[in-house]
Amino acid sequence: MHARQEEIEGVLEHLLPGATASPARLHEAMRYAVLGGGKRVRPLLAYAGGEAAGAERSRVARVAAAVEMVHAYSLVHDDLPCMDDDVLRRGRATCHVAYDEATALLVGDALQSLAFQVLVEEPLCERAADQLHMVLLLAGAIGSRGMAGGQAIDLASTGREVTLPELENMHIRKTGELIRASVLLGARCGCLQHGEALESLDRFAKCAGLAFQVVDDVLDADSDSATLGKTAGKDARQNKSTYVSLLGISQARQFAAELREQALQALNGFGDEANRLRQLIDFIVLRRH
Amino acid sequence: MHARQEEIEGVLEHLLPGATASPARLHEAMRYAVLGGGKRVRPLLAYAGGEAAGAERSRVARVAAAVEMVHAYSLVHDDLPCMDDDVLRRGRATCHVAYDEATALLVGDALQSLAFQVLVEEPLCERAADQLHMVLLLAGAIGSRGMAGGQAIDLASTGREVTLPELENMHIRKTGELIRASVLLGARCGCLQHGEALESLDRFAKCAGLAFQVVDDVLDADSDSATLGKTAGKDARQNKSTYVSLLGISQARQFAAELREQALQALNGFGDEANRLRQLIDFIVLRRH
Repeated sequence: MHARQEEIEGVLEHLLPGATASPARLHEAMRYAVLGGGKRVRPLLAYAGGEAAGAERSRVARVAAAVEMVHAYSLVHDDLPCMDDDVLRRGRATCHVAYDEATALLVGDALQSLAFQVLVEEPLCERAADQLHMVLLLAGAIGSRGMAGGQAIDLASTGREVTLPELENMHIRKTGELIRASVLLGARCGCLQHGEALESLDRFAKCAGLAFQVVDDVLDADSDSATLGKTAGKDARQNKSTYVSLLGISQARQFAAELREQALQALNGFGDEANRLRQLIDFIVLRRH
Repeated sequence: MHARQEEIEGVLEHLLPGATASPARLHEAMRYAVLGGGKRVRPLLAYAGGEAAGAERSRVARVAAAVEMVHAYSLVHDDLPCMDDDVLRRGRATCHVAYDEATALLVGDALQSLAFQVLVEEPLCERAADQLHMVLLLAGAIGSRGMAGGQAIDLASTGREVTLPELENMHIRKTGELIRASVLLGARCGCLQHGEALESLDRFAKCAGLAFQVVDDVLDADSDSATLGKTAGKDARQNKSTYVSLLGISQARQFAAELREQALQALNGFGDEANRLRQLIDFIVLRRH
């Protein structure tokens, strides 16, 4: 997995504009926001989804980069003073602290555009029409009904008690949709464009996305900032409802374990080609940061 | 032109999520930012580019909506306190004043995603591979080397004297690239995918984009806020270099007139099918707000 993470770093490094290309400060800040940190969960899931579908690695690399660029953009905007107002991310100063707010705003905007660019500038599957569908999948996953919508629901939820179904709806959009898209876009680079196998991957990805968030909540409640590389205990201080606040920490852990089981079951129809996906659900559920 | 503007309003109204769909506040704010105002210069250029290339109107409608969504997103982010900190836009409160900063940030983010979604969810030209190229054109036009890059250069230029070539470079990116993309994307819905005619449209669009900015500078220096529907005299107060500050107002007007001539010349190879484009360059150069 470490080798794969290094490969992802190289791909991102290559696809981001050089730090000296004009406008240099913006490009430098984009590279700061994307490179040199992060678990790269979404790219790893894209590669694993691609492997399950027999996809060419050079194609999946672009999908992996695109979803990580989107993820990085969402972190940069989420850390801004008008949102979470956070100063620490991946063990370093957040983008608006290292640069300035206006630059951080543009970094996020430009990373979103770059993600779409990366997704269309080379052929990623046999039929161009299928590639258009990949763009649609990403746009839907991160728009007002996906990731950005989840952020809006999160904003509206802060400071009030939400129900478990409300919390789930928020997280499915805020983090689940992009995680789901990562697996599916990887698979779509290969032979899986439709059908039962893709639906199985979809079930896996939905469980993985939700499990990721449940574990995030547990870690936020249970770790220190140095271990996490980001500010710990934030949810409780911001009076946010989480799986831990609603279920208690041991039941939240139990829920994550159940989601892991469901995710693994969804892969029953696959052989060894899905082993990376199986490893990743363990990585998601058993991680310490 | 008024009828066309109303048609554009209808298309945008239809393609934006309903104001009651969850998350309702975000969707309401997105509609506030896009609907009920604006000259719709970019959609008009898209329609005119489509007409010059014999494109189906229903296809061009999506391009027109996509470029206007991008434009609206850029205004919402540009008006934020960390950028221009403006309270008036299209004669109304800016999005972050009418809603709040966090919502305005997400409005811009989600509008960008929606623009890409609108561009891929229906076939817009004969070959899917050409449509992928349309997505690439838009992504390049608005990313770190296009619109967002122009904003970054603008930020870096504020408070210092820039040269005329620097100013031109900034504006080509900040406003020119999206205007150019509007014309070309419209044309690409029709029979023009490559070749000399498309290059002529490209020359037209480049002149139109620059003329638009020169006239903007003249109007900012020469009009009141009520006429403009946005804060007037802002450039001088922010100590920004403009075509007016560098050339003087009468030479700036002269420059706009020359760009109009060049734009019209670029259309020499076209017949009546380019009349809308000819009208639009007049609209751009002779407008009062």
